[in-house]
Amino acid sequence: MDPLFNPRSVAVVGVSASKDNLGKNIIKNLLNFGYQGKIYPVGTRSGEVEGFRIYSAITEIPDAVDVAVILTPARFVPEIVAQCGSRNVRWGVIQTAGFRESGTGGIALEKKLVDAANRHGVHFVGPNCLGVMDTTTGFSVPFIVLPSVYRTGNVAIMAQSGGMGLSLAERLNTSGVGFGKFVSLGNKLNLDEVDYLKYLMEDPKTNIIYFYLEDFKRGREFVQLAVESSKPIILHKSNTSPVSRTIAQSHTAALATDDRVVDYLTRAANIVRVNSVSEAIQAAKAFSMPELKGKNLAVLSRSGGHAVVAADACGEFGFCFPPLGKEVLQEIRRHARAGVIQLGNPLDLGDIYDLNVYFGIVEQVLEQPDIDGIVHVHVSHMAEEQDATRKLLGELGRLADKYRKPIAVVLEIPFDQRTMIEKNGDYPFFFDVREAVQALAIQHEHHSKRQKEPLFVVGEGDKHLWFDEAAAWLKSRQESGQQPMAHDALELLEILQIPTAPWKLATSLEGAREAAEQVGYPVVLKAVGASLLHKSDRGGVVVNVEDSAALKRAWDELISSFNDLEGILVQKMIFGMREMIAGAKRDATFGPVVLTGLGGIWVEVLKDVSIRLAPVDRNQAMEMISDLSGAVLLESYRGLKPADTALVAKALVRISQLIDRFPEIREVEINPILLCDQDGAGVAVDARVLLEMKHDENPVL
Amino acid sequence: MDPLFNPRSVAVVGVSASKDNLGKNIIKNLLNFGYQGKIYPVGTRSGEVEGFRIYSAITEIPDAVDVAVILTPARFVPEIVAQCGSRNVRWGVIQTAGFRESGTGGIALEKKLVDAANRHGVHFVGPNCLGVMDTTTGFSVPFIVLPSVYRTGNVAIMAQSGGMGLSLAERLNTSGVGFGKFVSLGNKLNLDEVDYLKYLMEDPKTNIIYFYLEDFKRGREFVQLAVESSKPIILHKSNTSPVSRTIAQSHTAALATDDRVVDYLTRAANIVRVNSVSEAIQAAKAFSMPELKGKNLAVLSRSGGHAVVAADACGEFGFCFPPLGKEVLQEIRRHARAGVIQLGNPLDLGDIYDLNVYFGIVEQVLEQPDIDGIVHVHVSHMAEEQDATRKLLGELGRLADKYRKPIAVVLEIPFDQRTMIEKNGDYPFFFDVREAVQALAIQHEHHSKRQKEPLFVVGEGDKHLWFDEAAAWLKSRQESGQQPMAHDALELLEILQIPTAPWKLATSLEGAREAAEQVGYPVVLKAVGASLLHKSDRGGVVVNVEDSAALKRAWDELISSFNDLEGILVQKMIFGMREMIAGAKRDATFGPVVLTGLGGIWVEVLKDVSIRLAPVDRNQAMEMISDLSGAVLLESYRGLKPADTALVAKALVRISQLIDRFPEIREVEINPILLCDQDGAGVAVDARVLLEMKHDENPVL
Repeated sequence: MDPLFNPRSVAVVGVSASKDNLGKNIIKNLLNFGYQGKIYPVGTRSGEVEGFRIYSAITEIPDAVDVAVILTPARFVPEIVAQCGSRNVRWGVIQTAGFRESGTGGIALEKKLVDAANRHGVHFVGPNCLGVMDTTTGFSVPFIVLPSVYRTGNVAIMAQSGGMGLSLAERLNTSGVGFGKFVSLGNKLNLDEVDYLKYLMEDPKTNIIYFYLEDFKRGREFVQLAVESSKPIILHKSNTSPVSRTIAQSHTAALATDDRVVDYLTRAANIVRVNSVSEAIQAAKAFSMPELKGKNLAVLSRSGGHAVVAADACGEFGFCFPPLGKEVLQEIRRHARAGVIQLGNPLDLGDIYDLNVYFGIVEQVLEQPDIDGIVHVHVSHMAEEQDATRKLLGELGRLADKYRKPIAVVLEIPFDQRTMIEKNGDYPFFFDVREAVQALAIQHEHHSKRQKEPLFVVGEGDKHLWFDEAAAWLKSRQESGQQPMAHDALELLEILQIPTAPWKLATSLEGAREAAEQVGYPVVLKAVGASLLHKSDRGGVVVNVEDSAALKRAWDELISSFNDLEGILVQKMIFGMREMIAGAKRDATFGPVVLTGLGGIWVEVLKDVSIRLAPVDRNQAMEMISDLSGAVLLESYRGLKPADTALVAKALVRISQLIDRFPEIREVEINPILLCDQDGAGVAVDARVLLEMKHDENPVL
Repeated sequence: MDPLFNPRSVAVVGVSASKDNLGKNIIKNLLNFGYQGKIYPVGTRSGEVEGFRIYSAITEIPDAVDVAVILTPARFVPEIVAQCGSRNVRWGVIQTAGFRESGTGGIALEKKLVDAANRHGVHFVGPNCLGVMDTTTGFSVPFIVLPSVYRTGNVAIMAQSGGMGLSLAERLNTSGVGFGKFVSLGNKLNLDEVDYLKYLMEDPKTNIIYFYLEDFKRGREFVQLAVESSKPIILHKSNTSPVSRTIAQSHTAALATDDRVVDYLTRAANIVRVNSVSEAIQAAKAFSMPELKGKNLAVLSRSGGHAVVAADACGEFGFCFPPLGKEVLQEIRRHARAGVIQLGNPLDLGDIYDLNVYFGIVEQVLEQPDIDGIVHVHVSHMAEEQDATRKLLGELGRLADKYRKPIAVVLEIPFDQRTMIEKNGDYPFFFDVREAVQALAIQHEHHSKRQKEPLFVVGEGDKHLWFDEAAAWLKSRQESGQQPMAHDALELLEILQIPTAPWKLATSLEGAREAAEQVGYPVVLKAVGASLLHKSDRGGVVVNVEDSAALKRAWDELISSFNDLEGILVQKMIFGMREMIAGAKRDATFGPVVLTGLGGIWVEVLKDVSIRLAPVDRNQAMEMISDLSGAVLLESYRGLKPADTALVAKALVRISQLIDRFPEIREVEINPILLCDQDGAGVAVDARVLLEMKHDENPVL
């Protein structure tokens, strides 16, 4: 993808000398940004723009062209792409709008465009986008004249909305960070988020990768790839309101909403998710500092109040303050007026006015092995310190680099100095103490979670013996033309070797009595029938049936309440105060995913689940469970044994393998897995399975 | 307090013509800010500063003086204050440092200062502070030359740290908000947070009150007063790390940490608590807009991406988007290029370039009765729109005022335009979509919680009959010289008419057997003895003793484990999956407070309590319970009856009255109140009471 950011030559298609022509702006930007390659305007009317001759077609350009920027009416675009192909132009930036977003005609046009590109081997950005910028090569082709020439930096901005991308670019440019590459992704008809990510992970000029996405084209590959990235990825995934308006029938469907799946999977992939431009800037600043390797900070502040606020924030984010070494304190004593300065960590520098003294102190603090980083609060309200402030930021940046420890610099300075620093600063700075400390926390959390394990385990399911049995079960269920009922689902669990509370399906009172004797009283009776499949609540259930007489009463009640019963399930009653859910579903964006959470009232109060790509292995399943914020409830308390989470993990592994292997399965849920009060052992009590049916008319929705 | 902000004349004590003299800066500020009153420099060496003659003492000034600003060495301050008094100068601003913060000598000096002020009827700000500013009168007396003359506004800044106050002042000045009055509170030796709050609540020039406090001098009065404020109060209470390092023996002590008490009480008083300058600015902007009266918003955006992000944020904060009226949509259609614009709410204005058209649309939207406010996202990257952007902000501000509906204006504009708006804008603006939406949410939440009820009910306890009995109980406990034990505490509950699980104190196995028969098996046995008071865990307890044989085993076990037993408490075993805590303690800052929360494992997972000033009445107690985020657990679920929270409310009322009436009580805790599985009825099972003892050597800590 290098030519897209550093082409030797560019054709700009859709240029004219007329006043309103947007193509001209592209040429202007290229010149303003100091692009050194060749520029070939192309347009239907001959003439000149900015001293360049306008060619009548891309095929008329005498030399080789690396990239074509296309901003013509949409209907001409497929043909222009074909011409690119014929002239061996391999990369396009299609800014033209009027495709998918304009309705059905646009979709047909898209198809033509894709065909042309595929036929001629042309890769392209867009369509419907603002274009590409590279601040190091000056290749900058948006069709509006940019308000300023941006400084270079190591952040790559990949934005599905050009407007959002430009907001970030503008702000990064004045945050001491800057950016290198910028792509407005547009409709992602050809190049998509996975292509860009793959390239940027290897790009030596990029250290931090930012994406603004309104949807995923290849969500599953994106998160898988992200796990392997050694560079931090900052993601603003917007458009979070639920797409699907169907009422969720299972907890799995209700809990694994589109955005929640995004949230959990990006977290599992150690992607830093943000929800605004400000948060993105903060994260970009965080990762522009050297890595914070521990939780020990020194706070140096020129104002006592700011030191207190910094200490509060450090406490909030779990940082510690080791004492400063004797040498440092001696050095400070030499420069401070006796008695007024507080010698400690946080350290009040209020009494020292000579900034040059600071650098010596900072350097000594950085040398202290048990200090991992510094929060340096610089408060200045004196106009005459303007140059000193600028020097301070530069010098602290240099020291941070030298010692490979972050210094979060907070500047509390007058407005004119702020704007000066925004324009010129080239080490990240903050204008708010808490934001600076939080940035260190974001960075530290990310680095401490860095792991190289894949998000799911490929192929592990292949070897399992139970696959054949499960396949046979599936086949018979599909042939029946009916979604699996309660006992069918329990049968499947047995095939998966997941222990269930003992059960029998009875079709007569006598059979029910025998079943109850066999599983042992007390029992639960559950009506089984097609009409019960559609119910989202747990109707048709009588719990705690203690003896034969109670059984008869329950039987009669159920029989008289439903008229399409296949039978009544008699199941041993298990007592457990704690319960869990294990579920799996096929997500529209990410494919098979697996979910767990605390069941019952807990899930309502804590709204706390773990989600991963399916399949998972045992380690991942155990990690999912311990990730739950209510995980403490699974430990031993108030006489209860620790919960046997091994069974839950096994269930997660099996159903994740199942949904991965069998595309016919839409959703599986085991709910509840009861954790017995006595010994903490888990046992599956209920399950539901939703299949893709032949001639499916979506009968359960 | 008016003279403090608008004096007819000011004496500045501590001025000299020498180069380093800070007093001179005060005079400079007064001149720069255009102060119109008379200025009298006072200093030991005669001369002139800025054209004013230096008087040798305040007593030498021929005219009346309203305010004296004092910046001399600390040792002279008490005498100068006495001189002020003798010359009828009633208000002082003591900037001098070197009092409490300098050790014991400083504390003695403070006493002298307070005596002098009291004797002569002088009120003063400080000492150890940066002084006072009033941007409307130009009375601005900090001792550093301020970098710019601040614009006027309706926010009052009251800051215990001058540095923090100045940071906010600087930032408010460039946020379209500005400020009016500014006080650096310093050591609060005379005027404190309550004095300022009282004054500002009545001050016609102040609409929004901001406090930065590192501690409270009169916390209880402050929150009580805040409840009565019709103006929003924004509080940054820093210094949140726990002061007390003693290990908490009860849940009440562990849960009601200093900062948590601040947090809950300020929330109950509808104070907006912030943790940074940025958050304070956001809140100030929020309250500078007209009141948002409902949750229905219109989002107008010039960029589709920003509209999506705005919609996400609106969803996150619970806002809705009613459809826009036909007339509005027609108006838009007239101006937009056909087909490209998306007509809906959020509304994409991307296609309309004439800002004047916007105003008509905005006005029509504001006229729509079911729209309560607007988020207006203005995206501009064109240098030539600079003036238009400035006009837009002014015009939107005018429309917001005209229709009394807030318009949160988000500006996504180039850097130079941003700085221009920061310098000149006089309606709040945001540079981030989510921050703007969140500001509306902060404002709406505050206004919808506005209530005039006092934070606690004064005197309600006075009439209660049980007071005499409680007093007798207390007396006998104090005379015993020993902290109350388990059975003592249960006795107190009976006096308070709070139902307890039936119990007897047995001193022999035979007595225990009789007791068990009386209360009914199964029972719990609890060892009672002085050594058990010191234990924070629940040692010495045997639960679920089912019969006489088990009782003997339990008895023997307990008898052999402890050698200082007073007896063994035999209590009926109550089964309840849900439990609650009711506690009260004497807080160092706020005096008697009362607390409730879900007990057992819930409190560990949810960390969710309610805290109020004691005493509370029944309504407040019920409100405390429903404020709990786990309140859903008290409702009916999984066969459990709704919990009988009336009993918990009664317990809260009674213990809150108790701690309010009897200063000898340090802490009371009823834990657990078990909510029976069967009928939801509550019953107190254990309690502990901690008394202020005569000759107290803090025996339990």
